[in-house]
Amino acid sequence: MHAITIPEPGGPEALVWDEVPDAVAGEGEVLVEVTAGAVNRADILQRQGFYNPPPGTSPYPGLECSGRIAEVGPGVSGWAVGDEVCALLAGGGYAEKVAVPAGQLLPVPKGLSLTQAAALPEVVCTVWSNVFMVAHLRPGETLLVHGGSSGIGTMAIQLAKAVGARVAVTAGSKEKLDRCAELGADILINYREQDFVAEVKEATDGAGADVILDNMGAKYLDRNVQALAVNGRLAIIGMQGGVKGELNIGALLAKRGAISATSLRARPLAEKAAIVAAVREHVWPLVEAGHVRPVVDRELPMSEASEAHRVLEESGHVGKVLLVAP
Amino acid sequence: MHAITIPEPGGPEALVWDEVPDAVAGEGEVLVEVTAGAVNRADILQRQGFYNPPPGTSPYPGLECSGRIAEVGPGVSGWAVGDEVCALLAGGGYAEKVAVPAGQLLPVPKGLSLTQAAALPEVVCTVWSNVFMVAHLRPGETLLVHGGSSGIGTMAIQLAKAVGARVAVTAGSKEKLDRCAELGADILINYREQDFVAEVKEATDGAGADVILDNMGAKYLDRNVQALAVNGRLAIIGMQGGVKGELNIGALLAKRGAISATSLRARPLAEKAAIVAAVREHVWPLVEAGHVRPVVDRELPMSEASEAHRVLEESGHVGKVLLVAP
Repeated sequence: MHAITIPEPGGPEALVWDEVPDAVAGEGEVLVEVTAGAVNRADILQRQGFYNPPPGTSPYPGLECSGRIAEVGPGVSGWAVGDEVCALLAGGGYAEKVAVPAGQLLPVPKGLSLTQAAALPEVVCTVWSNVFMVAHLRPGETLLVHGGSSGIGTMAIQLAKAVGARVAVTAGSKEKLDRCAELGADILINYREQDFVAEVKEATDGAGADVILDNMGAKYLDRNVQALAVNGRLAIIGMQGGVKGELNIGALLAKRGAISATSLRARPLAEKAAIVAAVREHVWPLVEAGHVRPVVDRELPMSEASEAHRVLEESGHVGKVLLVAP
Repeated sequence: MHAITIPEPGGPEALVWDEVPDAVAGEGEVLVEVTAGAVNRADILQRQGFYNPPPGTSPYPGLECSGRIAEVGPGVSGWAVGDEVCALLAGGGYAEKVAVPAGQLLPVPKGLSLTQAAALPEVVCTVWSNVFMVAHLRPGETLLVHGGSSGIGTMAIQLAKAVGARVAVTAGSKEKLDRCAELGADILINYREQDFVAEVKEATDGAGADVILDNMGAKYLDRNVQALAVNGRLAIIGMQGGVKGELNIGALLAKRGAISATSLRARPLAEKAAIVAAVREHVWPLVEAGHVRPVVDRELPMSEASEAHRVLEESGHVGKVLLVAP
């Protein structure tokens, strides 16, 4: 099979489409013939050499894909050769074939193409596990999403609106904020021109955000705590603004606030399977009813993964960038 | 009535036993004739002028007491004049009488004297709400308690053991650690001589603590994150080591950890009542069965509150210091 390899860490050109040994379905896994993969910011870190795959997983990048089951490994039930699926991966989505633990498979939601389905697993599992399973966003509460036009952001807006929450977003341009508004965002904040703390407070009568989904880490830590409401929950899923930041514990305590920080990739199989099962139960019906849809910025041939990474690094996209297998 | 007043913020001598207007039970409150109050570290902050009572609450210090109901205010049911009770207070426990919202009353557990019962409400509500309601300590998990010989610490050890958890404690002397061991603590760490991160890791085969109950704030923040296990929860309830500290978000994220910071005093009545109800349901049976008992360091006359504050400031005590009303 072919896959995107990383002979040497580096810039986008470090991604090389090459012939590699076929993936093999092990115990409890299925082999998926990939239709499309999708690009995540973590893939850029892996390309740069900063985010190596967990032991025992595929060396190729790619945290989600869609495709058809080509082989069912030992100990797997409930799935058959030919099934159209999408999947959460620990790696290997930038390839023609990938072995997937059965607990990380999802059926393709009715109404979506097999290619579109590749845009869902990572963002849906990330948003659902953080905003709902950890931070327990409730109807009537306010969610602040940083990077509202990203793949994660566009999904967070839709899921929060679908459960009856109010949504504030930050983004870097009017065009991106307009797209967030189309998806249902109520409070639009241009972080280049506005102070998100002041804007969120003003829009909530001084209360602040009940839940914040953050991808910036250190750079926003202090302001995120300022923007939290009493009993507010800050869910950190990325550190694009740095790893270490000053925490004002007094401010957090005065709000009886909480901060969580998670990632999906390193979780044990059982935890991933629990998240995927919750997504299938709670989110798939919303997708099939048309309340939530994947937002796809563009589709590129998988062999042009370098170009896809350039798009993400320039942040010109809205939603997901897909890589279509040959 | 008499109460401890604070004419001017300052050292222990700032506490003055003086005649003041009688407390009055308002709507939804009862008037308690106080048998004993107990001293908390927050009272020292109030004495120093750093922790003023919430609006509408007693100006006198004292976050818990025991006594007899002297009067039942309008809108209160389920309590009668003469009932022996203990109570969680927003203030006013250093006084002969105090008005208490009915949701913050607890019966005196069978087997305890009315005086002993004053040692329970604040520590039990703090430990239960943080370690169990927020951080969800489970049987088989490891709890690290900083200040294991404090009022909070002695209660946290007992409650965690009662639910089948393993308990690590830090304290500043062998004598204090011995007392913690008598209460059931499994892992004893002298913070003056040992590194608690290394000790907790060693005692847990490298895993770390599933829950940490912390009163130090900034000073311990980084090491607390280091000492957390995967999926670990750090519950901060005090800032004796400072308000602002550096948070290594990368380390927290690698563990999928969470940090909460709370206090009881500023919570709305409904939240306090929910905590008190949970305590009555889950903790009172453990006290009445003898599995959990108040640890009382000493009893002093309430008029000698200054001396009680000196004891707390010198950290020579183990458990609670009580103030007995005349």
